[in-house]
Amino acid sequence: MSILYRNIDTKAVGSSMYQLVERLYPICRSITGDGVRETLDILGEFIPLNTFEVPTGTQVFDWEVPREWNIRDAYIKDMQGNRVVDFQQSNLHVVNYSVPVKGTMSLDELKNHLFTLPDTPDWIPYRTSYYNESWGFCLSHNQLQTLTDNEYEVCIDSTLSDGQLTYGECYLEGESADEILIYTHTCHPSLCNDNLSGLAVVSHLARYLGEQSTRYSFRFVFAPGTIGSITWLSQNEHRLSNIKHGLIVALVGDPGPLTYKRSRMGEAEIDRATEHVLESSGKESNILDFSPYGYDERQFGSPGINLPVGRLTRSPNSAYPEYHTSADDLDLVSADKLADSFETCMKIFDVLDRNRCYINTSPQCEPQLGKRGLYRKAGGQKEIGGREFALLWVLNQSDGDHSLLDIAQRSGIPFGTIADVADELHEAGLLT
Amino acid sequence: MSILYRNIDTKAVGSSMYQLVERLYPICRSITGDGVRETLDILGEFIPLNTFEVPTGTQVFDWEVPREWNIRDAYIKDMQGNRVVDFQQSNLHVVNYSVPVKGTMSLDELKNHLFTLPDTPDWIPYRTSYYNESWGFCLSHNQLQTLTDNEYEVCIDSTLSDGQLTYGECYLEGESADEILIYTHTCHPSLCNDNLSGLAVVSHLARYLGEQSTRYSFRFVFAPGTIGSITWLSQNEHRLSNIKHGLIVALVGDPGPLTYKRSRMGEAEIDRATEHVLESSGKESNILDFSPYGYDERQFGSPGINLPVGRLTRSPNSAYPEYHTSADDLDLVSADKLADSFETCMKIFDVLDRNRCYINTSPQCEPQLGKRGLYRKAGGQKEIGGREFALLWVLNQSDGDHSLLDIAQRSGIPFGTIADVADELHEAGLLT
Amino acid sequence: MSILYRNIDTKAVGSSMYQLVERLYPICRSITGDGVRETLDILGEFIPLNTFEVPTGTQVFDWEVPREWNIRDAYIKDMQGNRVVDFQQSNLHVVNYSVPVKGTMSLDELKNHLFTLPDTPDWIPYRTSYYNESWGFCLSHNQLQTLTDNEYEVCIDSTLSDGQLTYGECYLEGESADEILIYTHTCHPSLCNDNLSGLAVVSHLARYLGEQSTRYSFRFVFAPGTIGSITWLSQNEHRLSNIKHGLIVALVGDPGPLTYKRSRMGEAEIDRATEHVLESSGKESNILDFSPYGYDERQFGSPGINLPVGRLTRSPNSAYPEYHTSADDLDLVSADKLADSFETCMKIFDVLDRNRCYINTSPQCEPQLGKRGLYRKAGGQKEIGGREFALLWVLNQSDGDHSLLDIAQRSGIPFGTIADVADELHEAGLLT
Repeated sequence: MSILYRNIDTKAVGSSMYQLVERLYPICRSITGDGVRETLDILGEFIPLNTFEVPTGTQVFDWEVPREWNIRDAYIKDMQGNRVVDFQQSNLHVVNYSVPVKGTMSLDELKNHLFTLPDTPDWIPYRTSYYNESWGFCLSHNQLQTLTDNEYEVCIDSTLSDGQLTYGECYLEGESADEILIYTHTCHPSLCNDNLSGLAVVSHLARYLGEQSTRYSFRFVFAPGTIGSITWLSQNEHRLSNIKHGLIVALVGDPGPLTYKRSRMGEAEIDRATEHVLESSGKESNILDFSPYGYDERQFGSPGINLPVGRLTRSPNSAYPEYHTSADDLDLVSADKLADSFETCMKIFDVLDRNRCYINTSPQCEPQLGKRGLYRKAGGQKEIGGREFALLWVLNQSDGDHSLLDIAQRSGIPFGTIADVADELHEAGLLT
Repeated sequence: MSILYRNIDTKAVGSSMYQLVERLYPICRSITGDGVRETLDILGEFIPLNTFEVPTGTQVFDWEVPREWNIRDAYIKDMQGNRVVDFQQSNLHVVNYSVPVKGTMSLDELKNHLFTLPDTPDWIPYRTSYYNESWGFCLSHNQLQTLTDNEYEVCIDSTLSDGQLTYGECYLEGESADEILIYTHTCHPSLCNDNLSGLAVVSHLARYLGEQSTRYSFRFVFAPGTIGSITWLSQNEHRLSNIKHGLIVALVGDPGPLTYKRSRMGEAEIDRATEHVLESSGKESNILDFSPYGYDERQFGSPGINLPVGRLTRSPNSAYPEYHTSADDLDLVSADKLADSFETCMKIFDVLDRNRCYINTSPQCEPQLGKRGLYRKAGGQKEIGGREFALLWVLNQSDGDHSLLDIAQRSGIPFGTIADVADELHEAGLLT
Repeated sequence: MSILYRNIDTKAVGSSMYQLVERLYPICRSITGDGVRETLDILGEFIPLNTFEVPTGTQVFDWEVPREWNIRDAYIKDMQGNRVVDFQQSNLHVVNYSVPVKGTMSLDELKNHLFTLPDTPDWIPYRTSYYNESWGFCLSHNQLQTLTDNEYEVCIDSTLSDGQLTYGECYLEGESADEILIYTHTCHPSLCNDNLSGLAVVSHLARYLGEQSTRYSFRFVFAPGTIGSITWLSQNEHRLSNIKHGLIVALVGDPGPLTYKRSRMGEAEIDRATEHVLESSGKESNILDFSPYGYDERQFGSPGINLPVGRLTRSPNSAYPEYHTSADDLDLVSADKLADSFETCMKIFDVLDRNRCYINTSPQCEPQLGKRGLYRKAGGQKEIGGREFALLWVLNQSDGDHSLLDIAQRSGIPFGTIADVADELHEAGLLT
């Protein structure tokens, strides 16, 4: 059985992921538009990526694919013609999905369209208005304070018109048509943890898994939040029965501990595998129960879909101060944390890919391991070795009802050790 | 859906209940006799009450209805003719169900019939002798100390003869024949918490529920402890299948925290509803497992009856020092605590009456709440509102397997909020 | 119903068991050979014991019965002819199952065959080499330090040749063919806790149970560890379906608290009975989950056998410093602890033997206990007696689904009280 995460230089992978975040950072993404296309083009340099375009107006369950939004420029100019708020400096300055506007207005009138964060006066907030036609600017509270009671020239050079919703998919064929689905959202503009970190980690998972042979097939979906997963699920209903396990991967570059949110089912194999990997890591981590708020696990866990899809983040949405502000920047994420998230995902996939139920072929009493060279020779010592203990656990529990993951959980021995000795026992003919 | 506890001035209800306790306090009640009849007559001023009389000797399961006991007077007189112990001062002075006695005897002889509480020497104990023919007096230990070694004239002017066991019932018809049963015991003489508090709260529950329309029918039973519930169950066997939930309400006026004792089943809907209401109250409360001792829950929870009937008290039986003594008086109970118990019962009935299982009509992914005006318009904020979170929980869990109470428990959101948003979703056609 | 542990003078039993340990201590036992035969002969003085001999080479599941090992003498002599290591002083000095050796060799060469415990330099280790032909000596580290760089004469006068594996069985017939199996291992030489304590306690259990009538039949097996239980299971496959409960009893004389290791099933009746007895004892005790390492529970709990067999020890294997060393001697075990282990086993067997499911014949409400003389007469007291509470629990739970042990566990009342009142109720016709 291959061990997916061996022989990967995770430090080098970490650097590569961080560089990808740097490259994607300036692009203005939204739930539709050219920013997403440009982003997917870059990911396509790393992995075989199919891009799909779904036309505006397409019915996707209870929703419709919205009009496509694109933006070229936006600013607020003072009477002297200075750009006091400038989209070219940060794409967060414009409320995402703002309709076009051009005109002159007083500060009072303008203020109805300005958003700031008084508690963190240096930071620009991130705001959207996807399903409500309006426009607005986001700026730091300090910037707002410098605006004087004058007229301002306001311009948002955007278009909102029939077009496409764009998403990308990378499919790696395994021995079986059974799939593991990994989903990450592509719709956030210049915010690093949310979610360039997800794009970087998921694309690199696809890249390195593509170099290995696996039992499961893997499908990686890069699509906008909410409307993206709804669209993808709506367009792929015929495929859903193949999905055996799924993971939303997002917000995986910040310094917080890894946080797993359980699937709606709560004790699916993906839940148990991830919890085992996190507990075995020796590092701080958190486990959250499912709740119907957060990221795209909401859609995968809706009652009519109900797939075993969990979510891996570091700090979850809204649980870190920089969340949805300009402070979610290149300083918040690091190559180290990206690499740790990457390696954890690989270990989770390794558990899923190697996990199975064996049957002990010599189930009456213990088989004599010594005569097969599987056990130490001398007797009487106080302690048993960890490997020998793992052998006994696998033999004892392999009655067809317990998977290797069950055995790892019950014994408290890391899955890797359990799976390794199961390979030895299988080779010795003691397991089928 | 009506909300049962809205628009009730619980402060005024509290005063009314306390006044009722004051009025009932002097009456000498027992498991049979005129004291019970007089008590039920007074309750009948508040609610439509049917009174039932069951003749002495009627077989009720393994028991027989006992002879009826009535008492006019009782005293111990010293040689000077002074009443040193006087039934007219407190009906607790006579062991309840004492047979008649008249004669003169020495203090030594008399002492075999005297009961005191040496540890609380000011208090008169409450004693009964229902199923063993005997007689006795209860007095404070201080009183006993003043008795000198002389002859005493002893008189108990009681009758114990064929008659009736009397109980009352108030039935409120709801949309359905399914019933919620509320039971409280009527057999204690001048003891306020045990159980004039129960009589006051239950009669007022009946009074205020009678002004509203409910899904369930409600049946309120006012009957003596043990023999009363055995008699009622024996006479109403044909009705028991209608009882979906039940609650013994007793000892609900003292300063202790509310205490719920689970039904024999332990996880019946009445158990879960009551626990949810107590936990959501933000006040101290206790939950006890079922045990076959206490009040009439013993009979409802016998193996051949086995109805889902829990018990709500404040301090439970024998868990407060004044229990079954003259100190269980008008000072121990208060309008405030009676009102708090009343309101809690109303909230429990509200959960039971509004609880149901819905089906999400748009179960594949989330329905678009924004276009129905059910969701906020702008995006990007850190926090989600409590109402919106409740909407998402109800939609997510409404797959036919989870009731609104299940959703309230899983989400940690109070039932009232969950039921309110379910009403909104139902109106919007998103739930059936 | 008889109460198995009443009327036994456990203090006298403790003395008898300790004397047996003293008598068995000098004998050199192994998994085969004359030491085991001599040991079983002595046990046969106390109980009716059948001895079985299984020839070398017999296939027992995945194993073969090994050759028989016997030893007459062994030593290491210095150049002056002094026995510096002498089997006659302690049979632990020879690695158990050493092949014969005779010759002269340098200290350097000899050291490959010497085993010591540097951390406890006064103690001789216990070592075995059952399935790997080799030889060796065990000695204290202090002894080793005194050996000088000279030639030594080495002799192990042993034989390893075709013979028999010997085990003993004592069967006590009960009312039913259903069996309780008790197993203890016989293979350790001069080590007192591991496992002369087990031999002493199990033989005395058989002796005292043999004087009583029981519902279950009891089978006591005295056989070597691992190969003994494998051999016994292999030779008794047709009998296994009769075994309803089983207990490995070993290491039961040291000062540690009693420790129960659950059967593979984890919640079998033997598990629940033993946990109840230990919890009710008021003494410190430990409960361990099943794991596939330890003593012969490994074989009884293999997936193809899977019998409900737990294990009772005091300090478990390797959890006390003297384990498998010469310090596991007559000072480590005591008559008191042997007696405590004996009495605990008797109480466990008593629970198993008296446990059953009754049906309340008067299940609708409580039966009137007073008229049957089963309940106190006066009413109103604060507290209920423990016996009366047990009566109510048994009546309430006797619906055919709950055994007396279930009732003891749910109520927290010791099994003995529950079983005693069940006997009273049965006699009164209230239980069938």
